[in-house]
Amino acid sequence: MKHGFALFGAGRIGQIHARNLAAHADVALRHVIDVSADAAQRLAAATGAQVSDTRTALADPQVQAILVASSTDTHAELIQAGARAGKAVFCEKPLDLDLARADASLAVAGEAGILLALGFNRRYDPAFRRLHREIAAGRVGTVEVVSITSRDPAAPPPAYVARSGGLFRDMMIHDLDMARWLLGEEPVSVYARGSALIDPAIGTAGDIDTAVVVLETQSGRLCQITNSRRCAYGYDQRIEVFGSAGLARADNVPATTVETADAGGFTREPALPFFLERYAAAYRHELDEFLEALRGKPAQLATGADGRQALALADAAQRSLETRAPVLLSR
Amino acid sequence: MKHGFALFGAGRIGQIHARNLAAHADVALRHVIDVSADAAQRLAAATGAQVSDTRTALADPQVQAILVASSTDTHAELIQAGARAGKAVFCEKPLDLDLARADASLAVAGEAGILLALGFNRRYDPAFRRLHREIAAGRVGTVEVVSITSRDPAAPPPAYVARSGGLFRDMMIHDLDMARWLLGEEPVSVYARGSALIDPAIGTAGDIDTAVVVLETQSGRLCQITNSRRCAYGYDQRIEVFGSAGLARADNVPATTVETADAGGFTREPALPFFLERYAAAYRHELDEFLEALRGKPAQLATGADGRQALALADAAQRSLETRAPVLLSR
Amino acid sequence: MKHGFALFGAGRIGQIHARNLAAHADVALRHVIDVSADAAQRLAAATGAQVSDTRTALADPQVQAILVASSTDTHAELIQAGARAGKAVFCEKPLDLDLARADASLAVAGEAGILLALGFNRRYDPAFRRLHREIAAGRVGTVEVVSITSRDPAAPPPAYVARSGGLFRDMMIHDLDMARWLLGEEPVSVYARGSALIDPAIGTAGDIDTAVVVLETQSGRLCQITNSRRCAYGYDQRIEVFGSAGLARADNVPATTVETADAGGFTREPALPFFLERYAAAYRHELDEFLEALRGKPAQLATGADGRQALALADAAQRSLETRAPVLLSR
Amino acid sequence: MKHGFALFGAGRIGQIHARNLAAHADVALRHVIDVSADAAQRLAAATGAQVSDTRTALADPQVQAILVASSTDTHAELIQAGARAGKAVFCEKPLDLDLARADASLAVAGEAGILLALGFNRRYDPAFRRLHREIAAGRVGTVEVVSITSRDPAAPPPAYVARSGGLFRDMMIHDLDMARWLLGEEPVSVYARGSALIDPAIGTAGDIDTAVVVLETQSGRLCQITNSRRCAYGYDQRIEVFGSAGLARADNVPATTVETADAGGFTREPALPFFLERYAAAYRHELDEFLEALRGKPAQLATGADGRQALALADAAQRSLETRAPVLLSR
Repeated sequence: MKHGFALFGAGRIGQIHARNLAAHADVALRHVIDVSADAAQRLAAATGAQVSDTRTALADPQVQAILVASSTDTHAELIQAGARAGKAVFCEKPLDLDLARADASLAVAGEAGILLALGFNRRYDPAFRRLHREIAAGRVGTVEVVSITSRDPAAPPPAYVARSGGLFRDMMIHDLDMARWLLGEEPVSVYARGSALIDPAIGTAGDIDTAVVVLETQSGRLCQITNSRRCAYGYDQRIEVFGSAGLARADNVPATTVETADAGGFTREPALPFFLERYAAAYRHELDEFLEALRGKPAQLATGADGRQALALADAAQRSLETRAPVLLSR
Repeated sequence: MKHGFALFGAGRIGQIHARNLAAHADVALRHVIDVSADAAQRLAAATGAQVSDTRTALADPQVQAILVASSTDTHAELIQAGARAGKAVFCEKPLDLDLARADASLAVAGEAGILLALGFNRRYDPAFRRLHREIAAGRVGTVEVVSITSRDPAAPPPAYVARSGGLFRDMMIHDLDMARWLLGEEPVSVYARGSALIDPAIGTAGDIDTAVVVLETQSGRLCQITNSRRCAYGYDQRIEVFGSAGLARADNVPATTVETADAGGFTREPALPFFLERYAAAYRHELDEFLEALRGKPAQLATGADGRQALALADAAQRSLETRAPVLLSR
Repeated sequence: MKHGFALFGAGRIGQIHARNLAAHADVALRHVIDVSADAAQRLAAATGAQVSDTRTALADPQVQAILVASSTDTHAELIQAGARAGKAVFCEKPLDLDLARADASLAVAGEAGILLALGFNRRYDPAFRRLHREIAAGRVGTVEVVSITSRDPAAPPPAYVARSGGLFRDMMIHDLDMARWLLGEEPVSVYARGSALIDPAIGTAGDIDTAVVVLETQSGRLCQITNSRRCAYGYDQRIEVFGSAGLARADNVPATTVETADAGGFTREPALPFFLERYAAAYRHELDEFLEALRGKPAQLATGADGRQALALADAAQRSLETRAPVLLSR
Repeated sequence: MKHGFALFGAGRIGQIHARNLAAHADVALRHVIDVSADAAQRLAAATGAQVSDTRTALADPQVQAILVASSTDTHAELIQAGARAGKAVFCEKPLDLDLARADASLAVAGEAGILLALGFNRRYDPAFRRLHREIAAGRVGTVEVVSITSRDPAAPPPAYVARSGGLFRDMMIHDLDMARWLLGEEPVSVYARGSALIDPAIGTAGDIDTAVVVLETQSGRLCQITNSRRCAYGYDQRIEVFGSAGLARADNVPATTVETADAGGFTREPALPFFLERYAAAYRHELDEFLEALRGKPAQLATGADGRQALALADAAQRSLETRAPVLLSR
C-alpha cells in the first residue's frame, strides 16, 4: 500500500523532497501546495501530483502525511492544521523561530497523537549515522568531548539573513541537534562568541557570520562547535567524538577519491559543494525512516521535541552572544 | 520522447539495468526476456515491462535499443539479431569469449550501421572518469606508466570458473580496457604471469586466481596490472597514472568517511564490498551516455571495437601465461 | 667559537637539553646543576660537563648562557640570578606559576638587557613552523578561527597535579601560546569550561582533566582549544587555522607511514606516544634558534614576554572556570 | 669499548657515513681514504679522523671494520683487501657491477670468515622495517603479491648513466633486494620492459629511464616493480604487500603533516626530496645493526650474499630487456 502525501513548499528544499517522494515505491505524492502558483504547477507536473490548496490537501482522506517545506513562518500553522486533520507531519527545520510558537505546535501535535518528525538532515547522513552507531556501540568508551565543524560555502544575501532568525537559529541549529544526539546528555550551559568577519552587511543586519559555541552537560561532558558562513574548500561538515577509549570522527566527503601529485604536493578534491550534494542520501533516508515510523516500526527520527530543544539551545546561544555570558538552561 | 528498450537477461546484472531503465525518465522498458520464465516474470512485474521472447521484442517498432545482459554465450547471437532488426545494442562485457565470433558481431553491427556499446562499467565510474579527464587535461603531462590494481572480494565457485573463459577474459578484461583507455596508445606486447594461490580447485580447473600483467605500447609507455580473486578488505579497485608532470590516481571508495582511533591506530572503513556497490553510479551513467549517443549527441562510450580489443589483449595474456613468453600484438 | 652553557636541572627535560647541547657543534656544555647530586653526576659524566653549583656556574666567564630546566619554583630565581650575571637565559616553560613573580623576572631581565627565551617547544616543531609560515604567507587569507586539540596520553599522578598549577598553567599554557602565535592578535576575552572525567583524584585535588576554552581577539577572531589528560591513540597534537581563503592544518605524526588493511578496514599507526618523541626535532631547533639569537641574528624565539602572556591567559582561564564567566583581559 | 673504523670514500655517501660514524658513541672513526686528497682532508678534519691510504688503514690493529663508500669499481678490491686483513666490511651497494667479481669477493670474505654487510639502505628504513615485521607477524597471511614503486626525483647526467651499469644494476637493485626480502622466497623468473621516455641521451647511452619488472617465485608468488628516473612530487618510495589475510603498505614520507585547503582541494606536502632525506634514519640504523653484528649479537643485516643475489636479479632483468623474453634463474 502506498502512503499518500501532500507537499507544502515548491522551493529548493521542496523540490528535493518532491523528487524523493515521487521516486519512492511506497509513496503517492498527491498534492503540491505553494504560494507561487507557477512553482507549484511545475513541481506537480514533474511528479504527477496535483496543485492544491491547504484545505483541499488536508481534507483528502488518502493523504496520510504532510511534508512541510514551505517558508519557516508557515511551519507552525501547517503543523497544527495537519495535526488537527490527523495527518502525520514531517517538517523541515526549524520548527519555528519562536520557542512559544514551537511549543504550541508540539502541544497540538501531542493532543492529536500524530507523528511529528523534524528534518534535521544530518541525522540521516550515512557518515553521521555510522558515527552515532560507533558511539552507541561503545567504540569511544564514555563520551567526553564532541567537536563539530560546520561551514557553509558562501554567505547568504543580507535579505535572507534578515529573515533567518540569525546564525544560531538558522545554521547552527543543525549542529546543536547533532551535539545533543552525540553527547547523549542534555546541555545545561551554553556559551557563544561570534563575529561578522565575512560580510559587513551581515553585521549591520545585527547578525554574525563566524561563531564558536561551548556546551556543557550535567556530568561535565563538553562540546565545541564552530560555524562559518563562508568556506573556500566546499561545505565543511565534520564531527569528532572523543571518549575514554578513543576517537571516532566523520570527515568531509569529496566528489571522488581522485588525487593528483606534482611538485606542489598531493591534492585531493575539495568537499562536496553544499547540502544538496552532501546530504542527497540523507534526504532519501529521512523519508525511509519516516515511512518506517508511519508503519509503526522502530525508526531513527528527529522528533518535534528534538526540534524544540535545538531551538532552545539556539536561543540560549543568541542570548549568550548578546550578554557576553554563559546561559544556564532550565530543564 | 521516451526510448523503448528490451532487456535480455534477468539475472544479477540484468536486475541492475532493469532498475535503472525503469527509473529513467527518458526510457520505456517494454520487454524482459530470460531463459527462466520466473526470473523474467518477476523483473517484468517489478518494472512494468512485459515478458517477451526475442522475436517479439525485436519486432516491436517501439523498441529502439536492446540491452544484452544475458549469459556470455548468447551475446553474439543477440547483438547480430538486434543489429539486423536495426536496434541499437548495449551489450554487457564481454562481447564474446571467442575473438572470431566477436569480430563477426562487429561486422554485422557495422553493416547494419547501428550503435553498439559495451558495458565496461569502470569507464563510467565517477572516479575513473575524473582520472581520465585529468589525464586528458594534461595534469600528469605525457603518460608513462599506468598501474592498475583490481581484486575481487572472494573467488567464484569452480563451476563459474570453468565457464568463465579464465581470469584474463572474465576479470582482467576490465583492466585491459582501462589500460587502453588511460595509456592513450594501443599495447604492442603483453606478458602475463599467474598462479592459483587461493583455491586449488581453480588451478585444477586450469585457471589462475592471482595474476600480474605487463603491457607495452609502441612509444614505450608501460602498464602493470595485478589481479586477485580474493581480497580481505573489500573490492580493491585502484588506478595510478604516472607521467612527465606527476601522478593522478583513484583510490578505493569506502562506505563512509568515518574513522576511529584507539591504541591500535586510526582505522578507516574497508573498500565497498563489490561491483554492485562500487559501480552503482557507473551503471546509471553508462545508461545516460548510451541515451546521449542514441540522440546523436557526443557521448563517452566503450564501443564494440573496444570490447574486441580488450578481448584480444586477454587472449594474448592467456597465451603469454601458457607459453611463458611475451606475446606481440599485430595491429 | 663555541658558546658556553650551564644547564640547571638533570631530570627528564634537562636530559633532553643536555643531549642536544652536548651534540651541538657550536656549544660547550660546561656545568650541570641539580638538587640531586646523583642525577647531576650522571648527566655531567654523559656529556663531559662538570657538576657545579649555581654560584660557580654563573661566575664562569666562559658561560654565555644558562638553560633552566629545573623545577618550576626555581625558574624566577635562576632567571634573575642569570640576568644579573649577564648571562642569556633559555628557560623551560612556564616562566612561573605566579604572574607577579613572572613579571619580576621580566623586569630584571629587561634591566640587565639580556636575551630571555622561553621553551615553548611547539613553536619549534617542524609541522607547526610550517603552519605558521603558511599563515604568514597568506595561504589562508585573513585568519578567522584557530582550533587547537591537545591531549596527553595519560593523566599524571595526583601528586604532580597538586604542584602543577592546574591544567591551564601546566598543560594548556602551550596551546594558549600557540593561539597567540597563530591568531596574530592578542586575545581580549577568555572563557573556560572543564571537568574531571578521567580520574576523580584530579577533581579531589581541585583540578580538571578535560577542558574547552574559547578566546576572542579585538577584531573578532576566535580560537577554540580542547585538552584532555588522557588519550587512547597517542599524544594528540593538532592545529587547524581557518581563514578567508581556506584552511591550513597540522595533523598528528605517526611513527611510520605503514598502513595495514583487512576486513576491519585500513589502519594507520597511532600518534607518536608523547612529547619526547613528537617534539624531539623541536628541542633541537629551539637550541638552534637560541644560538642564532646569541649571535645577534634574526631568530624565531618565544620570549619571556610570550611566557608572561601565556601565563596571563592561563590565569584568566582558571578564573573563568571558577567564576563560570568569561574573563576580559586588560591590555 | 669503541669500534675502530676506516672509511673509504669521501663523496656524498661517504659524508653521510662519516657523520654517523663520528656521532656514534661506540665508534672511533680513525681513517678516511679518498682519491681526492682535498675531499679526504675536509672530511677527516670535520670528524677528527686522519687522512690515510689503504695500506695504512688496513694495517692499523685498532681498525676493526672498514666502511666502503668509494666508487663501485673499487668495491671488490677493498672488500677483498679488508677481508684478508681480517677486518669486518660494510660495503655500499652494489657489491660490483660484475657477478663474477662479486662472487670472488664473497669467496674471499668467506675464507677469511669476516662479517660482510651490504648497505641496502631501505632494509633499515623505519617504515620498511615495520612493514617487514608486520609480514613476519602474519599480518597479511601468506604473501601473494609484492608491488614496489621507486622513482628518483630527477635523471642523473648521461655521464653517470654511462658508468652506472644501467638502471637495473644501479637503481632497481634496491627494489630487487626489497622484493627478495618481502617475498620470503627466491625469484625463479624475471621479466623486464623499459623505455627511455625522459631523456633521449639516456637511450643513446644504451640505457632506459622507465621500467617495469615482474618476478615470480617457485610457489607462484608474484612481484611487480616500477622505476622511473624522474618524479615531479619528490622521491617516490612505496611498497605494498598483499596476502591471503590482507594488505600492508608503506607510503611516502612528507616533510611535515601540514595540509592546506582551498577551492582547488586539500593539499599535502610532496614526498621527501631524495634518499639523503628519506633514508637519513636508515643510514643511522644500518650502522647500529652492523655494530650489533660486530659484537656477535643478532642483527638484521643485508649480507654480501644478499648483494650478490640482487645483482644476479639485475643482470637477469637486463638480459630480459635485451632479449624481450623472461629469464629463468638457476638456483
